[in-house]
Amino acid sequence: MIPALKDVQAAVKRIAPYVHNTPVLTSATIDAMLKATVYFKCENFQRGGAFKIRGAVNAILQLSEDERARGVITHSSGNFAAALALAASALNTKAYIVMPSNAPSVKRDAVAGYGAQIIDCEPTLKSRESTLIAEQKKKGATFIHPSNDMNVILGHATAVMELAKEAKQLDVVIAPVGGGGLLAGTALAVNHLHYYIETIGAEPFGADDAYLSLKTGKIQPSINPKTIADGLKTQLGDLNFPIIQKLVSKIIRVEENEIIEAMKFIWERMKIVIEPSSAVAVAAIFRNSTEFKNRKVGVILSGGNVDLSNLPF
Amino acid sequence: MIPALKDVQAAVKRIAPYVHNTPVLTSATIDAMLKATVYFKCENFQRGGAFKIRGAVNAILQLSEDERARGVITHSSGNFAAALALAASALNTKAYIVMPSNAPSVKRDAVAGYGAQIIDCEPTLKSRESTLIAEQKKKGATFIHPSNDMNVILGHATAVMELAKEAKQLDVVIAPVGGGGLLAGTALAVNHLHYYIETIGAEPFGADDAYLSLKTGKIQPSINPKTIADGLKTQLGDLNFPIIQKLVSKIIRVEENEIIEAMKFIWERMKIVIEPSSAVAVAAIFRNSTEFKNRKVGVILSGGNVDLSNLPF
Repeated sequence: MIPALKDVQAAVKRIAPYVHNTPVLTSATIDAMLKATVYFKCENFQRGGAFKIRGAVNAILQLSEDERARGVITHSSGNFAAALALAASALNTKAYIVMPSNAPSVKRDAVAGYGAQIIDCEPTLKSRESTLIAEQKKKGATFIHPSNDMNVILGHATAVMELAKEAKQLDVVIAPVGGGGLLAGTALAVNHLHYYIETIGAEPFGADDAYLSLKTGKIQPSINPKTIADGLKTQLGDLNFPIIQKLVSKIIRVEENEIIEAMKFIWERMKIVIEPSSAVAVAAIFRNSTEFKNRKVGVILSGGNVDLSNLPF
Repeated sequence: MIPALKDVQAAVKRIAPYVHNTPVLTSATIDAMLKATVYFKCENFQRGGAFKIRGAVNAILQLSEDERARGVITHSSGNFAAALALAASALNTKAYIVMPSNAPSVKRDAVAGYGAQIIDCEPTLKSRESTLIAEQKKKGATFIHPSNDMNVILGHATAVMELAKEAKQLDVVIAPVGGGGLLAGTALAVNHLHYYIETIGAEPFGADDAYLSLKTGKIQPSINPKTIADGLKTQLGDLNFPIIQKLVSKIIRVEENEIIEAMKFIWERMKIVIEPSSAVAVAAIFRNSTEFKNRKVGVILSGGNVDLSNLPF
């Protein structure tokens, strides 16, 4: 069930009018430290501040006219909530976002600001799911899962297609893994581009369900994840896991202090704001620096949405 | 005593191999808020994290072989110290930096890291000047003033030349003013590009010596400046003031809370790290937004060197 190259290429073309082709940045300091050539795909500069709008736009554009008229619905308290709201707004579609009642007001404001309707639920998995199903039936809206939806995965795959245009002859691409949509999309695009490029996932030790899933051969739940990288607390899904299993060579796990140091380092040296989830991928190349030596490394900086009033440094 | 367009063009060509042609970024959010088109020249992405290397490289490249062999010397505890050290290193010249004994260790480390020799002085104007003169004599090094040196001013002028190549038909360019080197350089380049483009300076109320200098017609000292924008605490010089007097239409002053809000806004929305001095220019366009409406506005984001452990938000 791995989509073909032409499916990825079609997604690139489909979403192009609605997303930014984000810049690819390099750092002489980092290259010298790692003795590698590192290309940072800056999805922190993406619309909505994260890569998620790629999948959201691609999924909405695959709906029939009738489906689009009835709108889309998802559950998320993070970047996908804002991304689906923003994508729906750009595509004249109604978006319903099921959010836990304890979601930070800054995230609720962002979603509401893009014109989506917020539907409150209790901060439990059960309430979230039952609220979603009830609302979905009531509105007739199409459910778009934040990471376990093939159109979302294909949308997310477009970031690395753009990266590969600017950074020729990559040896390895590394992306953070939470729900698995970005990593699966990255892996399938990478695999179609050049079979010899390696795809690596990066994950906090405090939320290493993807690592354990690969190790055990079946999806492990994310139980009480503890990490500053709040975008990576979710678990893999049955659509993205087989892709990750087949095409990702490994998951590198990093400690919390490594995430914070990597985040601070990127802010200080590259003068760009990245969120902890992005810093997980950076921390992984620093932690395992010897294996990246003399290689051309692509890093997906997944987003830049942080609460500046609550920084870890 | 205003240099000609060809002098600016020569500086552009001269320094090009040693500096970054930094990106020009835009923000749909900011344009919508201001009903203007704003082009941000991102000197926070410049080598050393600030525009200052432009002037430093240009000044060193104008020295004779004999002078270069004896090295350069300056006094600075801020961005110019690091910039001259970095420029000297790139050009195989020795740099001596007179720094007050209470300069932050992060700044001392940066200067030392670029291979310059730090010469300590007491944290007084008198000690700084006497130390500089004594050392200059001892080493035979050429003194390069951080802002009141025509080659430094011409070097700084190159940023807006690059900006104008990407942002066509600018109506106004705004830059922060501290020692006056960037503002004078910007104004003279702007004036040569198109006589009808306006150049505006931006300054904190707590360090408004440039505003007062323009008002009174003579250079006013910067007495007990109080502002978070520590790069703007210095006063104008006899070489840059006449240029500013002739070619800058006005200085907009901003409050400290406006500087902090503008800085936070740029970090949050544009996902880039700018220092308070850069935020002064952004705060100025927000404060006087009506006068920028429907205009094409160039903003020089002068640098991105901040202490992340000591943020104002």
